[in-house]
Amino acid sequence: MTPTEIRAILGRMARGELALDAVVDELAGRFRTQPFEDLGFARVDHHRAARQGFPEVVLGLGKTSEQAAAIAARIVAKGHSLLVTRADRAMFEAIRAELPAVEYHEVARAVTLRNGDVTPGHGTVLVAAAGTSDLPVAEEAVVTAEVMGNRVDRLFDVGVAGLHRLLREHERLAAARVIVVVAGMEGALPSVVAGLVSVPVIAVPTSIGYGASFGGLAALLGMLNSCANGVSVVNIDNGFGAGSIASLINHLD
Amino acid sequence: MTPTEIRAILGRMARGELALDAVVDELAGRFRTQPFEDLGFARVDHHRAARQGFPEVVLGLGKTSEQAAAIAARIVAKGHSLLVTRADRAMFEAIRAELPAVEYHEVARAVTLRNGDVTPGHGTVLVAAAGTSDLPVAEEAVVTAEVMGNRVDRLFDVGVAGLHRLLREHERLAAARVIVVVAGMEGALPSVVAGLVSVPVIAVPTSIGYGASFGGLAALLGMLNSCANGVSVVNIDNGFGAGSIASLINHLD
Amino acid sequence: MTPTEIRAILGRMARGELALDAVVDELAGRFRTQPFEDLGFARVDHHRAARQGFPEVVLGLGKTSEQAAAIAARIVAKGHSLLVTRADRAMFEAIRAELPAVEYHEVARAVTLRNGDVTPGHGTVLVAAAGTSDLPVAEEAVVTAEVMGNRVDRLFDVGVAGLHRLLREHERLAAARVIVVVAGMEGALPSVVAGLVSVPVIAVPTSIGYGASFGGLAALLGMLNSCANGVSVVNIDNGFGAGSIASLINHLD
Amino acid sequence: MTPTEIRAILGRMARGELALDAVVDELAGRFRTQPFEDLGFARVDHHRAARQGFPEVVLGLGKTSEQAAAIAARIVAKGHSLLVTRADRAMFEAIRAELPAVEYHEVARAVTLRNGDVTPGHGTVLVAAAGTSDLPVAEEAVVTAEVMGNRVDRLFDVGVAGLHRLLREHERLAAARVIVVVAGMEGALPSVVAGLVSVPVIAVPTSIGYGASFGGLAALLGMLNSCANGVSVVNIDNGFGAGSIASLINHLD
Amino acid sequence: MTPTEIRAILGRMARGELALDAVVDELAGRFRTQPFEDLGFARVDHHRAARQGFPEVVLGLGKTSEQAAAIAARIVAKGHSLLVTRADRAMFEAIRAELPAVEYHEVARAVTLRNGDVTPGHGTVLVAAAGTSDLPVAEEAVVTAEVMGNRVDRLFDVGVAGLHRLLREHERLAAARVIVVVAGMEGALPSVVAGLVSVPVIAVPTSIGYGASFGGLAALLGMLNSCANGVSVVNIDNGFGAGSIASLINHLD
Amino acid sequence: MTPTEIRAILGRMARGELALDAVVDELAGRFRTQPFEDLGFARVDHHRAARQGFPEVVLGLGKTSEQAAAIAARIVAKGHSLLVTRADRAMFEAIRAELPAVEYHEVARAVTLRNGDVTPGHGTVLVAAAGTSDLPVAEEAVVTAEVMGNRVDRLFDVGVAGLHRLLREHERLAAARVIVVVAGMEGALPSVVAGLVSVPVIAVPTSIGYGASFGGLAALLGMLNSCANGVSVVNIDNGFGAGSIASLINHLD
Amino acid sequence: MTPTEIRAILGRMARGELALDAVVDELAGRFRTQPFEDLGFARVDHHRAARQGFPEVVLGLGKTSEQAAAIAARIVAKGHSLLVTRADRAMFEAIRAELPAVEYHEVARAVTLRNGDVTPGHGTVLVAAAGTSDLPVAEEAVVTAEVMGNRVDRLFDVGVAGLHRLLREHERLAAARVIVVVAGMEGALPSVVAGLVSVPVIAVPTSIGYGASFGGLAALLGMLNSCANGVSVVNIDNGFGAGSIASLINHLD
Amino acid sequence: MTPTEIRAILGRMARGELALDAVVDELAGRFRTQPFEDLGFARVDHHRAARQGFPEVVLGLGKTSEQAAAIAARIVAKGHSLLVTRADRAMFEAIRAELPAVEYHEVARAVTLRNGDVTPGHGTVLVAAAGTSDLPVAEEAVVTAEVMGNRVDRLFDVGVAGLHRLLREHERLAAARVIVVVAGMEGALPSVVAGLVSVPVIAVPTSIGYGASFGGLAALLGMLNSCANGVSVVNIDNGFGAGSIASLINHLD
Repeated sequence: MTPTEIRAILGRMARGELALDAVVDELAGRFRTQPFEDLGFARVDHHRAARQGFPEVVLGLGKTSEQAAAIAARIVAKGHSLLVTRADRAMFEAIRAELPAVEYHEVARAVTLRNGDVTPGHGTVLVAAAGTSDLPVAEEAVVTAEVMGNRVDRLFDVGVAGLHRLLREHERLAAARVIVVVAGMEGALPSVVAGLVSVPVIAVPTSIGYGASFGGLAALLGMLNSCANGVSVVNIDNGFGAGSIASLINHLD
Repeated sequence: MTPTEIRAILGRMARGELALDAVVDELAGRFRTQPFEDLGFARVDHHRAARQGFPEVVLGLGKTSEQAAAIAARIVAKGHSLLVTRADRAMFEAIRAELPAVEYHEVARAVTLRNGDVTPGHGTVLVAAAGTSDLPVAEEAVVTAEVMGNRVDRLFDVGVAGLHRLLREHERLAAARVIVVVAGMEGALPSVVAGLVSVPVIAVPTSIGYGASFGGLAALLGMLNSCANGVSVVNIDNGFGAGSIASLINHLD
Repeated sequence: MTPTEIRAILGRMARGELALDAVVDELAGRFRTQPFEDLGFARVDHHRAARQGFPEVVLGLGKTSEQAAAIAARIVAKGHSLLVTRADRAMFEAIRAELPAVEYHEVARAVTLRNGDVTPGHGTVLVAAAGTSDLPVAEEAVVTAEVMGNRVDRLFDVGVAGLHRLLREHERLAAARVIVVVAGMEGALPSVVAGLVSVPVIAVPTSIGYGASFGGLAALLGMLNSCANGVSVVNIDNGFGAGSIASLINHLD
Repeated sequence: MTPTEIRAILGRMARGELALDAVVDELAGRFRTQPFEDLGFARVDHHRAARQGFPEVVLGLGKTSEQAAAIAARIVAKGHSLLVTRADRAMFEAIRAELPAVEYHEVARAVTLRNGDVTPGHGTVLVAAAGTSDLPVAEEAVVTAEVMGNRVDRLFDVGVAGLHRLLREHERLAAARVIVVVAGMEGALPSVVAGLVSVPVIAVPTSIGYGASFGGLAALLGMLNSCANGVSVVNIDNGFGAGSIASLINHLD
Repeated sequence: MTPTEIRAILGRMARGELALDAVVDELAGRFRTQPFEDLGFARVDHHRAARQGFPEVVLGLGKTSEQAAAIAARIVAKGHSLLVTRADRAMFEAIRAELPAVEYHEVARAVTLRNGDVTPGHGTVLVAAAGTSDLPVAEEAVVTAEVMGNRVDRLFDVGVAGLHRLLREHERLAAARVIVVVAGMEGALPSVVAGLVSVPVIAVPTSIGYGASFGGLAALLGMLNSCANGVSVVNIDNGFGAGSIASLINHLD
Repeated sequence: MTPTEIRAILGRMARGELALDAVVDELAGRFRTQPFEDLGFARVDHHRAARQGFPEVVLGLGKTSEQAAAIAARIVAKGHSLLVTRADRAMFEAIRAELPAVEYHEVARAVTLRNGDVTPGHGTVLVAAAGTSDLPVAEEAVVTAEVMGNRVDRLFDVGVAGLHRLLREHERLAAARVIVVVAGMEGALPSVVAGLVSVPVIAVPTSIGYGASFGGLAALLGMLNSCANGVSVVNIDNGFGAGSIASLINHLD
Repeated sequence: MTPTEIRAILGRMARGELALDAVVDELAGRFRTQPFEDLGFARVDHHRAARQGFPEVVLGLGKTSEQAAAIAARIVAKGHSLLVTRADRAMFEAIRAELPAVEYHEVARAVTLRNGDVTPGHGTVLVAAAGTSDLPVAEEAVVTAEVMGNRVDRLFDVGVAGLHRLLREHERLAAARVIVVVAGMEGALPSVVAGLVSVPVIAVPTSIGYGASFGGLAALLGMLNSCANGVSVVNIDNGFGAGSIASLINHLD
Repeated sequence: MTPTEIRAILGRMARGELALDAVVDELAGRFRTQPFEDLGFARVDHHRAARQGFPEVVLGLGKTSEQAAAIAARIVAKGHSLLVTRADRAMFEAIRAELPAVEYHEVARAVTLRNGDVTPGHGTVLVAAAGTSDLPVAEEAVVTAEVMGNRVDRLFDVGVAGLHRLLREHERLAAARVIVVVAGMEGALPSVVAGLVSVPVIAVPTSIGYGASFGGLAALLGMLNSCANGVSVVNIDNGFGAGSIASLINHLD
């Protein structure tokens, strides 16, 4: 209950329009049932939406194309930018039927629509990937960071077995404000990258590999045990998560 | 080889002090054996040391007290601040014999010595912990962030089973530029915190628990699968890692 | 052997219809081969059937449609209510060919037929679910509890990353006599709910998620390690189990 | 803010003791900063304390004896009953120094002090255990349920390898309102018990065993996969959790 | 080298057909290169074949229908009985094209052809199964034991959640010389059965179940941790292995 | 109730010593409360004790020396032979104080006392072990089989890395009626042995090894996946289980 | 920068074609931006290519047929031999459209094209396989070693359950300079082979098996725990890795 | 049976000292019972001992000091060099009491005694280690390779987080004939090293680390999934295994 609302009700009592008992009932009731959206937390939530432009990102996985399209339409109707992840082509078509302006990112399996509500990030987000099989996850991070207003630099196919490919690009590494590193198999790339830079590295293990990669577990454990400073980790194949954390960091003032 | 060095050698050739063949040999040899510390990467490394004041943090685990003390003395002799983690009291005593000014943080099991080489971070690092048993790990994060130049706010004993304890502190949550969340058992606190704020959350699973906590695995998996945006994860019990990542983020311009 | 049966046989001996040896043989044989359904346990079993109306619930998984239909017909022929879980549409059609009155619950993948043999539960069973992908499991719990005679309240899409959605509904939480909480990913919702109420919480991990969710293992471990009182756990995706335990509790006098 | 408080402040305004602006400030401030203990959730918390008599159970594991004693003293000072779990004899002595009336349960490793604030449960809680090695966990469940006001019946050493020991006691099984079943090794006892009764069964795996018991994992998985209805599971060795859930159920009206 | 062969070569030397040096060379060469089929082990192998009639059982899994048919034809051509496991109907058809007399066991997914080379076992092999979903594995054990010459008794659908079904059949349990127990989910049936009899119990975990059954791991661990004497375990779903071990035991004199 | 008992009660009724109602009450009561020890299963249990001489083997692990000594005294008092496994020297001393005739097997960590109640087995039990570190488990199997009345042959240090050590002993392998094979590390020995013989092989994985042996898991999995016929497996380090299964098989007529 | 290049630039300065400043700029720039392919590491890389003829092997898994064909064409265009692994027939057809001379190895799922750039290895690489189901992996090792210039001997179907098959071939084992051993299930073959020879053994676990083979984990752990000297291990199903390591060893002078 | 032995027996027959039947019996008996040490495999074993000088390496782990000393004495008595691994100081003292000339390698926990029976290897074995905590395992590899006759170069503290330390040493990498790489935590070093050289790399994961290193599992999985060619892996902490494989390779002609 805002000061304005309180002043109004007390004014009505002062003017005799409301009895004391009615005022007490009204105020006590508001204390009892006060919705949480009136609290700071909800307000924080709105600030966040305003600054990032993404009050709700749609995870396509486990939703029907129809559900995804309906949610997407509601989001865009509020003037927000749109990001749908893990969307196959059929889901894209369903969304495009509602929102003709959406764009499909085939490799990243993402649907986006950019509105004017996105605040630009401060620096560059570098997304590095170890192998060509890691591209879908890396591209999901790229698309996520881009639609959230970040300038993104791609540095792909720089696995640790051919170090010179990575070392040759040290200027691009040094130019980034935050780095996302995507790798499957042994997941060693984040450690090597973090040893070369002094910015936060978000490591994304991928399920690329076979046998004892155990669906990305090997890469995940490798990254969690990184001997280099500055490496934190997200879930296997979670390119979206890494991209959005990078964006959060890149939007810090 | 810097321009100054090149100019010097060419000058000596011009003055007849060096024959052409000797110059060719010298230059070709430098190209062939050029140490990596002359490259950009090594320079980046020095920049990093300069800005963070921590070219080398000593992990006490697996070192003898004597080894730790010797390394510590060498670091401080270069004018750097010191952080030794996983140090028991005996290790602290060994270090203090070399460096009387060091301080021991009992709960965090850390030894520190602050020199003037540390650049202050921009905002506040909030370190939240779910239970009192998580304090050693949380304090390691606190000590790490503090010695690296950050203002740190502690928010302990705010586990998800008593949400009001956390919600009551929303203003402190909202005031942080980056948040470290330490939790064992089911590891749910980072998800709840990340849902309330719009800054990066570094989650630290702890080995607190028994039975099916499997030494922190339950908390680790919970955090990796967080449904909230903005959560990245470090190794079980890695308070140092979380504190230093938070510091990296908090030092970003 | 009931008193009535014993009295009958002794009566026949008294009337000279049976010799002493024949009576001894008959009684000794009954002691030797006495089927367990004559014992207390079997009777308990019948009491249970009478009170719950479900002497046998059919798990459709791993059965052919024909097998499921045959068993269903036999159950209904005895006047019992019917519940078939994990039934796809083809199985439903096969059962409907035998029992035209059955109803199909598409999301829950369950077939039901309600007879008059079900005793109503005492209070309300609340079924809460974290995300929309958890609905099939949550609906299985709902359908199970309903067909077993319970009043059920649904509280869906209240994941911990948006706490206000849950907190706003505290009155419905407070009104339940027993609560089923369904969640995948990090499985944190049961801890949060149990911290807000003082009734038993049955937690159901779901296999929703990817990567390090390891088919629901992350959620399962999280729930087993809940720091909140009152949380017990069933198998991953076992909505039926949770619904029937909730019903058992809700039928306790 | 209660009606009484609101009426008081409005009365002071009516009497001219407070200006309108001051009242608006006061009320708006209370809306903004209202502590959560004034809300329904906190009140639920107090109801819970009142009914169960246990606003806070102390987990001794990971606390020093001094910490445990200090917390225990604070709880008893409020007139509450006390339960400290995972307490060794040294912790007990430290607590007894503060609270001479406490009692130590050696096998259960628990410290209790019973005050008049405990509401009796409705029926009997039966605690069954498979082997003698399971007794510490079983006794923790017993002590927990007893101190929370329940009548408890012990049924120990009834492992499934000697079924007659269990079957002989079917009357005690049938008499219970809720059953806790504690078992290590293969953890089969809950399934057998649940097949004989129609009340909720809380299964507690124990870490008893060796080799492929993997610290209780075998028993845990066995219980989660129980083919019997009515079995829910708590963490390995969590006798306290099972006892308190049983108490929650046994206090339902 | 058999005595007959040695006598022949010495005879040729005695008759002057072979010089001493040639005999030494021949014998020394045979010692050096003597094929292992001439040794006791190989002979043991033939004894085994003779007694069991199964020098080679064909595992269909991972073979083409053509490969399986070719191997089957070779086996039968030697006069042996045939067992092909994990054979789908297409593999059966391919084998039948070669061997019209073969029989297909649909549930067991096995192809058999019985020749006169099988020695009958001494007693009865009882194959018990917990649930109807375990039948494929149980039937594989049945077919294996039968084709190897054993009298087999089936005792299906006797899971531990309805003990009376099992206890009612104690005479059949007591009549068996060796018992195979097949169970998925929690895998408790072997413990219960072994507690009722005094003969060896071969436990077969099945992959039946979902969620935390982890493809039969729960049942496997349960069986390995059996608290009952006399239980040994084979691989998940290995009905063949259990049947052939039971046959080995049942053929012991 | 035996025929004799029934005849007695009917006789009393016939003689007018008991009224009809009293007879009905008595018989109905016996049907209702009939203890399981009167049933076949309990009798089977006694038969088993008679034939094996071991109604109860004491697992020392998790028991105090006093508990073990008390149970041991009770067993011997009934005239039974005694076997206590996992007994350290202190437990042995406690037992010897009660039963001076007991013998301690240091390597096997077992206490035995042989009475005249043991039936001899039919053939020889061979216990093979791969390495010297496996001896404690192998000796537990040896002592178990011996005290249960079996002739035992030891074949130790025959690991697969030096095949000739094993092959040289094929006559002892061929002479056994049942074979226990104990091995840690990769656990390959049971497969090799089972390929050389035609009798049942009980495989015992041991926790010998380090690193990726994971406490015996490697050996356990290896044995479960044996490509040889006739191998069944018991729990890691369960020498007792293997010895008693071997004895069961060796006592089959 | 090679001596020749340096001499040239200094010559131009000597001839007055370049000013001192321009020379300093040029040389300093080369030091700063010197590509890594000018360093020893890159040169080592070229040596390696020259000696092995395989600067880049194409892993077909996770690539489209078009991608694979394009990369293959580029490799062959440089005059190199070609190896594409994990290639299905469609990928082969796509490559053949570009490179008509390529050969397809159906069982090995590999595409090869041999150019004159391959140096022959010194001795024979023996590839042994336990069962017929292991052939795809074994053949991948064979094809890899062959195309890399090695003489390869195949020794298939020599599993440890029939030792005589292996022992009979000891001369071929003894003739190899390096041995690759491929086995699924319990993975015991490498230990047995390594016990018979004195050359390096590269063990390849395969995912052959079911149940507790856990996709090759059992074989992998068995091989890592080998009690025999000389066994090192590669990833599950990694026939290519084993073949190329064997080739590396076989090319050592 | 050697030619000399055969000739002797035939001579006795020729001289009438043995009847034909006796000769046939003798020869047939020798064929039947021929010890395996007379076969090629055993001879291979002796060749191996001769070439490597290590017929038996003693694994101290799991042996008493007395057992180790007795075995060591026996080995040295045959004129062989000695290597005892995993030996603590007490074991060393026990061995030195028997063999005063032995040397103790404290960090490697190894006891050695060098005799003249060791053949020198061809090139240099490089042992690289990532961190100082990996030294015990690395030193075990060094001591093993040295005592087996190899020239060893140590390259320690070259973890991937500070690449320049490794790259600076490329000449030593390039000079090695075989490389052992020891690393804990994420285990990335072998991949990086293998990408820089063209010789075999033996990777040794160590149990160094905490939390999600799971006792070396993270490093092990990382190494098995190496994206670089030429990497094979041994068990966690198995410095001995790596050293002896490196020696095998380095002794290949």
